This record gives sequence, structure tokens and C-alpha cells, in this order.
Amino acid sequence: MYYIGVDLGGTNIAVGIVSEEGRIVSKAETPTLASRPYPELVRDMAACARKAMEEAGLTDEDIHSIGIGIPGIADKNGVVIFCTNLGWRSVPLRAEMQQYFSKPVLIDNDATVAGWAEFQAGVSRGTHSSVFLTLGTGLGAGIVINDKIWAGAHGAGSELGHLVIEVDGVPCTCGKRGCAERYCSATAIIRMAREACADAPNCAIMRAVGGDTEKINAKIVFDAAKEGDAVAMQVFNRFVKYLTIAINNVISFLDPDMIILGGGVSRAGDFLLDAVKAALPEYLFYPTLPQPQLRIASLGNDAGIVGAALLGK
Amino acid sequence: MYYIGVDLGGTNIAVGIVSEEGRIVSKAETPTLASRPYPELVRDMAACARKAMEEAGLTDEDIHSIGIGIPGIADKNGVVIFCTNLGWRSVPLRAEMQQYFSKPVLIDNDATVAGWAEFQAGVSRGTHSSVFLTLGTGLGAGIVINDKIWAGAHGAGSELGHLVIEVDGVPCTCGKRGCAERYCSATAIIRMAREACADAPNCAIMRAVGGDTEKINAKIVFDAAKEGDAVAMQVFNRFVKYLTIAINNVISFLDPDMIILGGGVSRAGDFLLDAVKAALPEYLFYPTLPQPQLRIASLGNDAGIVGAALLGK
Repeated sequence: MYYIGVDLGGTNIAVGIVSEEGRIVSKAETPTLASRPYPELVRDMAACARKAMEEAGLTDEDIHSIGIGIPGIADKNGVVIFCTNLGWRSVPLRAEMQQYFSKPVLIDNDATVAGWAEFQAGVSRGTHSSVFLTLGTGLGAGIVINDKIWAGAHGAGSELGHLVIEVDGVPCTCGKRGCAERYCSATAIIRMAREACADAPNCAIMRAVGGDTEKINAKIVFDAAKEGDAVAMQVFNRFVKYLTIAINNVISFLDPDMIILGGGVSRAGDFLLDAVKAALPEYLFYPTLPQPQLRIASLGNDAGIVGAALLGK
Repeated sequence: MYYIGVDLGGTNIAVGIVSEEGRIVSKAETPTLASRPYPELVRDMAACARKAMEEAGLTDEDIHSIGIGIPGIADKNGVVIFCTNLGWRSVPLRAEMQQYFSKPVLIDNDATVAGWAEFQAGVSRGTHSSVFLTLGTGLGAGIVINDKIWAGAHGAGSELGHLVIEVDGVPCTCGKRGCAERYCSATAIIRMAREACADAPNCAIMRAVGGDTEKINAKIVFDAAKEGDAVAMQVFNRFVKYLTIAINNVISFLDPDMIILGGGVSRAGDFLLDAVKAALPEYLFYPTLPQPQLRIASLGNDAGIVGAALLGK
């Protein structure tokens, strides 16, 4: 059997046909054009799925189920409760998709789905518990406990970006202050770099962006840090400190087999991983006990399709 | 069948015989005298168990298993890794106890055990996921997910008192700074009250302790707050803010069916619960979704015996 996986992003709808082992056998993509009415988006998802099935030479009989990863949350009836980027509220996504396929339709949050992909077919395969962190514009998470996804009793869990790590800290888009997302994300790196550059107009970051702080991104900061620029190193070290605290909070709370760093910022690879590993021991409550493995995600952008598909497994 | 439950505290060893339904049918107690060699403590636990069995008219055939709740953590082989109050390191507690009873011996952390007791026979019975918080000298926790205890892949989880909620905050006994335990515990209430009383020698707290700040405890502060004393109210509100943030962090992370407040501070009952419930909405990430139920623990001190006993269930 094969599984259809839909990665519903703010920019693109990416659909793939996925084998039992988590291999993508064919793919199709189309722009999301998020402002359209939702039935049009679902129609395009279904059309992409049909196209990918055709390319792989598959018929409905070969398909087990359809999984959809969304940048939001859905309830147990497959109704999307929130989907901020798309402006969705109470969208009956499962029912709509079942007009095109009479198959089970499973829906989950995109970070949860990416963590599930790594668990089924990526770096955390073989573990029984894991927490996947997406370090992107925000900070998302996917939790697996005892070989099962855990997203909360009401679907409101695994929002690790909105754990408060600094009482009365930096204001967050969610309305609270001091959320982890404000310190552990690409957005946070950019904010901290802009602050640091204000006092250092000749630093490597400012040279890289030609003095235009609007052009600063996480990669520019990390590249400058790798070259040893003092200002960039200071920003990088500050980010590592906050991320290490967030990771330590995961350990003190759940202590999973593995913690995985994914999302755009994780492309820094060992440069980031080694820095966190070096900082972590001073935060651990039980430093002499075995620790969760700390790894970089292995599936990259494919995690969205693979994880969504394997929701049906 | 019946279950033996041992609540190993720093002051007393309390042992009970517990029915399948979580009812204590007989009890025996003896001082811990913690500085003694561990074989003497285990001998006393076994003697208490025999005494309680005799009182209940039970023989070895009636006993299913022995559970022990410890103020520390044990590994999968029943070896106590840490037990700070008792100064234990690498104590083979299971093997030692099996010299007295040829029954399964199960060991877990006292907060985990208390959460399990509430799940099996107390306020969270009938739920499938819960986080129990003990608000005492420190802040401990017991986590149940999908009807099972979760204490981490390496036994280092559910240390909610050591999640950082204030980067570079108040120094903690664990060596870190800003741990939740420093803001959400009886110890924290006392510290905050002493600070507040330094500027308010005539407040109700100071009157209650005759001006001796060493005599301040959480109950005195809460009682003064209930009477409307401004200084006590200020301390109470500060504590409620921190506790609400810690509870919101539990929701954003795990979103369980129920969050239970236990430990000495929870004896404040509805006075505390109502204040937290009033403060919580402004912190919620999904304020319109159903929320975990928030309740006061129901089993009191018996939770230690009942939960330890029912580890074998």
C-alpha cells in the first residue's frame, strides 16, 4: 500500500505518494494562493494527489489513506480549528477532502508531522520517544511518546514556542511575554543581530548586508560567527544559551530518547549542535544520568510530506 | 489481591496495605532516622509491612506486589540513583527489599507516585492524561500520558520544578538560575513574603509572626491575604502569577486532560484555585479551545502510600 501526504504551506501545496518505508515515489506541487476560498485549495490538493498517483502508476486501490500537515491545529473530526497563515477558522478539511477520495483522511500540525516523519523514517527511527524542534520563523515542536504522537488531550499541546522562559520578557505575537519562540527562532536571531549591529556598524554582519539591517538573516549571522566575527559570535552565543535552556526544559519535563533540531536554522548543522552540546551540561538536573540524544533532522523539506502520509500508518 | 505501598519520607516511613480500588486497609509507621545505613531502613519498611499485613489479617499469598515511593529517582533495575534527603547514591533498594518479600518490587519518585494515586483512585480517575504538581518545599510533578506513568526515557523527566521560567533568575539549589521551583513553592512564598515584610513591619504577616520573619510560612501568608492584608495580597498575587505561568507551560507542552495541585500549599484550596483560574486565560495560546481541568488533589498524605502500592497494578 501507499500513502498520500499533503504538506499545506502558506506558499505551496506539496503532495507526495509515500511507500510503507517512508520513501517518496512521486510528487506534485502547486502554489497555495492562500487567500482563495478553502474548497479551491482542497480541490488543488486532490488534483496534485491524482497527478502524483498517475505519475507513479497507482490507482485508488493502492492508496491506504491521505494525511495532511497544516500550519495550525485540527480537532478529532478533522475540522481545522486554527490555521493562522491561511486565515482558516473551523474549516471542515476532512469532509471536503473526502469528496475527492473515499479514504481515511488524517490531519495534524506541521511540526508534529515533521517529528513523526523523523520517527518513522528519519533520524529518530528506532527510538520510542522524541521531541522534534523546528527552528524557523517561529519555534514549533512534534512530540512522540511510547511510539505515538502526543499533541495534547485537546490538541493544544506541543506548542513549545509558547512556553514562557522569561517572565515579563520580550512581547510575543501570541499576546504573552517571554515565550521561548522570541529567543529560539530565526526571528530571534535577526532581532538580536539588529540590536548588536546598532553598536557595531563595521562588524561582519553589517558588511555582509551592506549596512542594511533589513537584510540580516540567520544564515548571515551564523556565517559571520563561523568566521570568528566578535559581534556575530556574541549573537550566536546568546541564541545558543536560550536554545540550550529550551532544550534543557524539554529534558526536565519529558526526558525523551532523542531531541531533534529541524527547521531552517538547523541547517547550521554541527556548528550549532556542538555549541548546544557544550553548553548543556551546566543546565542538567541529573548530569550523571544518560541524556537524550541530540541530533539534527535528516529529512529536510520532505519531512512534511512523509510525516503527513505516515499519519495513516 | 492487595498491594503494599511504602512512602519513604525524610522524616517517616509510612507503609499501607491497599486494596485494588485504592483503599488503605491498614497502616504502620516508623521514624526514618535517615542517617542510618540503608539496610536498616529497608528492614524497618519490611517490618512495617508485616505489621500492617497482620493487622489486616493477610498472608503473603494475598499480596500482589510492593511499591515504594522515594524522594529521588531509581533506574529500571530498582537501584536508587539519587535520593537527596537520604543521601542515597546507587542503593540497590529492590534487591534489598526482595530479601524480605519474594514479590515484585516497584520503585518510583514520590511526586510521580502521588500523581499515579490521584489517577488510580483520586481526583483524576477516569482521565487518560494528567500532570500532578506538588507545591511543597520544592515543586515536583507526576505525569500520566495515555493511562501510563511517564517519567522519562532515562528517569530524568517530570522535574517541572527545574524548568527555567526566568533566564538568569533567582539562583536554585540545583545550581541553575530561574527554575520554576524558586517561584512556585512554599519556599518561594516565604522568600517573597520576607522581602515584602522588610518594607512593611506592621503588615498582617508581621503581626502574625510577632515580627520574626523566620516564622513566616505559606499558610500565614495565605491567611493574611484572605483577610485582605495588602502586603500579603501582593505576595499571593505574585505567587499566583508565577504558578499560572508554570501551569500554562504545562498546557503549552502537554495539554493533559487534567492538572492537579497537590502538596502543602494546595491546602489553600479554592482560594488558590480560583485565583489561578482567573489569571490563566490571559496566558493561553488557544483560549477558545477546551482546557485541561484544574483541580485540587483529593488524597492528601495518603497519596504516597496509595500511589506506591498501585505501581503494581
